[in-house]
Formats: sequence, structure tokens, C-alpha cells
Amino acid sequence: MAFQEYYPDDYSHCYGCGRLNDQGHQLKSYWDGDEGVCRILPRSHYSGGMKDILYGGLIASLMDCHGAGTAAAAKARDLGIEMKPGAMPRFVTASLKVDYHSPTPVGKEVELRAKVVDIKGRKVSVSVTLATDGTVHAQGELLMIQLREE
Amino acid sequence: MAFQEYYPDDYSHCYGCGRLNDQGHQLKSYWDGDEGVCRILPRSHYSGGMKDILYGGLIASLMDCHGAGTAAAAKARDLGIEMKPGAMPRFVTASLKVDYHSPTPVGKEVELRAKVVDIKGRKVSVSVTLATDGTVHAQGELLMIQLREE
Repeated sequence: MAFQEYYPDDYSHCYGCGRLNDQGHQLKSYWDGDEGVCRILPRSHYSGGMKDILYGGLIASLMDCHGAGTAAAAKARDLGIEMKPGAMPRFVTASLKVDYHSPTPVGKEVELRAKVVDIKGRKVSVSVTLATDGTVHAQGELLMIQLREE
Repeated sequence: MAFQEYYPDDYSHCYGCGRLNDQGHQLKSYWDGDEGVCRILPRSHYSGGMKDILYGGLIASLMDCHGAGTAAAAKARDLGIEMKPGAMPRFVTASLKVDYHSPTPVGKEVELRAKVVDIKGRKVSVSVTLATDGTVHAQGELLMIQLREE
């Protein structure tokens, strides 16, 4: 099961990765060793200015969702939470920085890989890359904050 | 006319702001004195995890497009380019940093305001805020690079 399938229902409406948002991307992230990984083939209308270049806003969006998912899964693992639907801790993005190194082509599957840089209480820092065919086109740094549960 | 209406046709396919992308947001930015301003009412499926909170990826996306538009318009003004359709210089995003200060509600018109921080040759730095009802929820910093024209 993907990280996002463990999110509580009230936290599953995200346009990027919510399983209850039927108009969104429904991004799915998984562990690959200590890295979070996800793959998606964006539809061709997600272009940037030029038709053949992927939209930078989509790149930032995918990094945000995949980074949030990896932060949550890492925190759950850190806390020793037994994973079952609804058990995933909820995180929000405090900051997102994306460096765009080269244009990302449209029509290719993109692979996002996230590494947890630091877990400090409710704060989790994550570093994310986005690549096609093994070439990294963009790099992101995220600071995620865990929501307090009632 | 909006900044984006002066973009060359081959640069008008952006999902966020391209006038030739009929599946995108078609964001439109204008001068308000020395600030670029744009307003948009995002559709309700652009939610974050929770149904009533705007998707952070959309916030980053809107900042990207509005920042790019303002950078291009500022550079055009700086160069004394006579504005007509197709005359706008083309920019790409080198980096985008977004700080999310508070949740942005869904169902409200958002206002983005961009200030040009610096123009140095082909590099333009822009600072952007996103607000609803006058409350700033997120702040962005962008570095835009002008493409070389053949």
C-alpha cells in the first residue's frame, strides 16, 4: 500500500495525492529502502510555456505531495506506529524550495525520490529529486510540520 | 491586456497561464503601479489534504506563473520594448521558494502581488505574496532567467 492510502479520510482530499479527490493526480509514494519513491506520467496538457516542457508548477506540486508523504511515513516509522488505514500522521508544508536545473520533457514518466534529512520533534526536513530516464531535472527541499492531533 | 496576452504563441501553452492551453488556469497578470497583480478564484477540487484548505502545490504554481509574468513585463519595461502581441520576452524559472504562513481557505478569490526585487542582465528576482481578503497566507521568492532569443 502507498503512504497516501494510510492517510485519515479527512486528510485525503489533496488535488495532488488525495485518494478521495477524483479530479486530482492521486500520486502514490512507496519506500525503496530509506528513500520514498513515486512515479507518474503527467498528462500532456501539464506543459510549461512551451508544449514539450513539463509545467514547473506541477513539478513543485509533485515534490510537495511526495515530500509530505515521505515525511509522514518516516515519522510514523520513527514513532513505531503500526500502519493501518487512517494511522498516518498528518503533515503540512511550512516551506518548499525548488531549483530547476534543466527542462523536464512532457510525455515521459517522471520519478521522484525523497530522502529524509532530519526529524526533530514535529519538524521533518526532506530533500527530493525529480528525474526522467535517470536524469535529474529539479531538486527540492521541504520543511514539513506535523499537525497536532486532538 | 494582461502580461500573458503579449507572450509569443510558442510560449503560450502553460497549464498555469497559457492563453492557448484550454485545460489550464489561464492566469492573467496586470500592473498595479510597480506591482504585478492577479486575482483568481480556484475551483474547489484544488484542495489540500483537508477539503477546505487550498492546495499548496497550486499556491506554488500560481506564484510561479505570476512571478514569471511580472519578471517578463518588468524586463520589457526596462528594455523599453513596445508592447504588442508576441513582443514579451520569455523567462524560465531557475528557483522558487514558498513559505506557507497560514492555511489558505478554499472558495475565496486569491490575490497575488509581485514586486521586482532586482533586474541584472537576464536574471530577474521577484517577491510574491498570496492573500485572501487582505490576509497574506504565503510568500514566495523567485529567480527567473530570460531565454536567449535566436
